[in-house]
Formats: sequence, C-alpha cells, structure tokens
Amino acid sequence: MFLRAMLSSANSMSKFDLDIDKVVSIIEERCAKKIGLQLPSGLSRSALKIAKKIEDLTGATVLISGNHCYGACDVDEFLQREVDILFHFGHAEIKPIDNVIFIEVRSYANIISVLEHAIKMSRGSRIGLVSNTQHVHKLDDAREYLLQHGKDCFIGKGDSRVKYDGQILGCNFSAARVDADEFIYIGSGNFHPLGVALATSKRVIIADPISNEVREIDSETYLRQRYAIIAKALHAKTFGIIVSTKSAQTRMELAMKLKEKAFRNGLETHLISMDEITPDKLSLFKLDAFVNTACPRITIDDAALFKTPMLTPAEFEIVLGERDWSRIKFDEIIG
Amino acid sequence: MFLRAMLSSANSMSKFDLDIDKVVSIIEERCAKKIGLQLPSGLSRSALKIAKKIEDLTGATVLISGNHCYGACDVDEFLQREVDILFHFGHAEIKPIDNVIFIEVRSYANIISVLEHAIKMSRGSRIGLVSNTQHVHKLDDAREYLLQHGKDCFIGKGDSRVKYDGQILGCNFSAARVDADEFIYIGSGNFHPLGVALATSKRVIIADPISNEVREIDSETYLRQRYAIIAKALHAKTFGIIVSTKSAQTRMELAMKLKEKAFRNGLETHLISMDEITPDKLSLFKLDAFVNTACPRITIDDAALFKTPMLTPAEFEIVLGERDWSRIKFDEIIG
Repeated sequence: MFLRAMLSSANSMSKFDLDIDKVVSIIEERCAKKIGLQLPSGLSRSALKIAKKIEDLTGATVLISGNHCYGACDVDEFLQREVDILFHFGHAEIKPIDNVIFIEVRSYANIISVLEHAIKMSRGSRIGLVSNTQHVHKLDDAREYLLQHGKDCFIGKGDSRVKYDGQILGCNFSAARVDADEFIYIGSGNFHPLGVALATSKRVIIADPISNEVREIDSETYLRQRYAIIAKALHAKTFGIIVSTKSAQTRMELAMKLKEKAFRNGLETHLISMDEITPDKLSLFKLDAFVNTACPRITIDDAALFKTPMLTPAEFEIVLGERDWSRIKFDEIIG
Repeated sequence: MFLRAMLSSANSMSKFDLDIDKVVSIIEERCAKKIGLQLPSGLSRSALKIAKKIEDLTGATVLISGNHCYGACDVDEFLQREVDILFHFGHAEIKPIDNVIFIEVRSYANIISVLEHAIKMSRGSRIGLVSNTQHVHKLDDAREYLLQHGKDCFIGKGDSRVKYDGQILGCNFSAARVDADEFIYIGSGNFHPLGVALATSKRVIIADPISNEVREIDSETYLRQRYAIIAKALHAKTFGIIVSTKSAQTRMELAMKLKEKAFRNGLETHLISMDEITPDKLSLFKLDAFVNTACPRITIDDAALFKTPMLTPAEFEIVLGERDWSRIKFDEIIG
C-alpha cells in the first residue's frame, strides 16, 4: 500500500497499482541476487523508487533498463541475460521467456460511467468487448453491466500472442474476431480501437475510463491518409524494407518475401535492420520509400514524422499491384 | 576501382577506399548466402551501393544495419547472429568475432605536407607518433620522414584492444605510452589527441591530412570544463551509473565497484543499462548526476547535451573523496 501511494504522488497515476509486494516476495522466494527492471517510458520515474525499495528490502542489486520500452514484444535482452530475474512492467506476456516475469499494471478506474455513455451511443444489440492490458480484467464486469442493459456481449479469444480474452495489442486484433454488430473498446488512445475497426470493418466506440471520454473511432480519415501515402509511394523506384531487431517483432521471412515480390516487379529493395526506428536513422539512407515489417504502430502513429513514405506490408502489395486498393488492411503480427 | 570512384562522387570522400572487391571475393570464396553490412553513420549512404553491388555480383541477400555505429566496440549483434558473414566497415578489429570481418577504411591522403608544418611546431627531438584506423598504415612513412628531418621517432605497441602499432582509440591510448618529448597525431578531430595529451601529460600536435590543418591540442580548457562538472556533482545525492549493453563497452564489474564505493559514502546510486545513451532517455530518470562506464567519448564529446552532470569513473572517485583532484584522468577501456 505504501508504494502504491508513493507512486501515485510521483506520477499522478493514482488509478494504477504496480504490485511491488509481489516483486519483493518473488525475489526473496528465489533468493535472487541480481534483478532487472524494465518499465515503459511513462512509468520510468517509478523505476528508481522500485529499485530502491527492492535493494533496501532484499539486499539484491538492481539494474534498470534505460532503453525505451514499447510493449511485451520489447523485452530488454541484454538485461535478461545479465540478471537472475527481469521484471518487465506494464505489459501482459506475449510468450514465456526464461527468467522474465511480466508485472501487469492494472487500472482500477471505474468503467461504469463510461459504459453508461457508450450504451447510449450504441446502435446494435450484439456488442463485442475489447480492451488493453490495463483494463482487460474489467471485461467481465463490463459484460455483466451490458447484459443488465439488454445487450448481447461477445468477448473473443485471441491467438497465441494474446494472454487474455478480449485483449487486443497494437499489432494483434485476433480477440476482436467475434460475431458482433459493433465494438466497445475500454481503454485510452485511438490506435488499438482503430485497429479493431479496420480488422473487423465494424463500428468501434471508445470508452476511456481514464479521461472519462466516450467517442466513436473515425477510420475514414485514417484510410484517406493511408491512401495518400500509398499514392506517393507509387512513384518510388527504391524501397527500404525495415526488419526489427527486437526478437518478438522480427519478421524476417515476411521481409524476404516482400523483397522477392519487389524483385519480380523490377523494383530495387534494401533490407535494413533496426532497433529503434527513427526519422534521423532512416534519413541516412537515400531511398524513395520504406516498408515497415517491425511494430505496426510505427508506420501509423509516427507517419507524420517520416518525410519519406512508410508503408505497411499490405500497402506495399498494393503498390506492387498485387493487392487491390479496397483490400487495404491494418498490419498485424499473428501469434 | 569502379566502386571507389562511385563512392567518392557520392560522399566527396575521394581520399578513402572501401575495398569492395575484397568483400565480393570473400563472399564467393565462402559461398555465403546472407550478408550483413554495418557502416559508421558517415558512410551510411554508401551502404545501398555496396549492397546492390554485392547482390548483383554474388546473388547473396544483403541485410544492412540501420543502427548508428560508433566503432569496432559496436558490432551489430543481431546482424551477426542473423547472417553468414557480417562486414563491419571503417574500424579495425578490437577482438575477433565469429563471422565478422572488419573492412578498414583507409585514407590515401598525403601526410607529408602536414608533417612539414608539424615539424616546424615541434619543440622536442623525441617524437611519439600516433594515429587512428584511417591513417595508421602511414605511420612508417611518417617515421621515415621525421627521421630524415633529424627527429627520433617512437611508435608504441598498444594493448590487446588495439590492432596496430601507434593506433589509438577513443577509449584506449596504450599505444601512446612511449618515452617521447611530445606527440604528433595524424588524423582528424580533437578527441583522440586530447586523450593522448591527458594520458601522457605531454604536448600533442594534430596533423590533419584531410583538412590539411596543423594545431596543438589544448587540454587546459578541457580540464577546466571537467573541473566545473565535477564541482557541480559534489552536491549530488543520487547518481545513475550507466552500463553499456554493447558487449565490447560493457564494464559491469567497474559499475558494481563504483556502486559499492558510493554506498560506503552514503550516496544513493542506480545502475542503468542502455544501448544508445541520449539526453532524452536520461531525462526520464530524476537523478542529480550520472557516471558513465560506457564509451568514454559520450561523457566528453556530448557533455554540453546533458543537462545533468555526467562523470567519468575517475571523476566520480574525486566526488567520493577517494581520488585527488590532481589525479583526474581520461577514461580508458583497457584491453
């Protein structure tokens, strides 16, 4: 309880709980001497306090990852090799990794008030419920509430990349493949619900219990932006195909397949592997366009940062004339 | 010859030669199918041309490292695992690594004209000669020239981290430990000769065959800047001790030793591991000062970028009261 209060004052995150007692008891139980901590950038400031608490209480030495961390696909592999146990905070496990323990950061924000509004906006009777790691443990409560208000509810089972029913990732919407009229997404941000809208072609209502906002996702604007980028890339003669060095994001086979397809179409391509994908690194390569096989979010969320068009694999197939424009889709990494 | 001309027009680097014929013949000889290329950022634009040439001539698939590369200490370990042969350009080997071939980039710039000027500036008769990878193959010519002009010449043997006699790295000046009155450094930049001046307490003349400039290194200004940073850190209560995740830069043992020393002095320290060390990553941690055990160059060359004082390990010992201010030294990674 002490740490919960402390973290909340440090981060204005009173609605999250980092479960440090569990961390300490695991360390004591395993008599671990060297501990790694990895937190998403939004929680970095808590890292020092968690480290100090662990060192004070257990006598273990703590090593904090200073690299940015974007998801469970982004486990710090140096740290994992270096320590007895690596605690990776804020994301649900994608695949089990020796000596890595995922400490999910759960929100205790009330979801009922946003659901009340979401129901008013709802047009269908068959609702698909999806969420992210922070709120996914509330989906049963959400279903209960919707059922009481006359809605049918569907919470899908994701593929092997997804830990919880109804959980969606920025790169995986398999849990949204249910027979619903529309979806309610419980969580923050536009990226995840946009993926659901594109993957399912269904209406998606965002119910954000943190900002207390309810709104509908607008996938039309997104599609117009993507079409504009694809149109620009139609004139490109040389392409960089980006491959991630983060092992749970590496899609080498896909990259090789795209390179072969491009070769058959007479285009010059270059495979470029990268850890963090940034505009300054890409600007070192004088290429007409890029295709990103790493984290799909980079292609979409960072689009405005890149001066050179960056395409998803499916969009590249459109450029190659091997996919119809109407079959544009959100990029997913399937488990 | 073709590529040499081509690269020169692309990079205005007519004085360098990338020896692509050697690369192609190694690939053919070993029947390698998957090739990695890693070049320092200054040569990144050549990567595409080299890749195309390799693919056209050998049929192998090339994967280019898109990460920044700062030295032979910074071999792309993802690429090394992924390919049959990784060609790492621009640096001399620090230690042999399976399937990594270091392709040094040698300058053919004339050194005589700068030596002529350097001799005029010289005050001693016993000259130590040092250089970097690009020019080190010219040291025998330089010695010959200096001998003809009445100077005694000393070219030192470095430790196991150093490949060539007289070669210095940004983190290793062992080849400068010779009994000379003063040094002539053949190469560009201030960092390497500054290290020689600090490591030897001798006068160092820079003879730069690329810019055709000759000047004396000013280590006094450097020392004043460092003393100012140390003075600021004297008031710090919390320190981040940075450990590099790049294996040839990792000094975990040193970091642990510093942490113990700090603990004995009642200071709070946190071990933070990082790949690229940037101000934005460090700003996520609210600490009063940092100690850098990774590449020494970051502490010195990037000092102005970091808002929080960053110390070398020896400077941290000064802060702890365990080293006298007069015994400040340039940080080295010893082989």
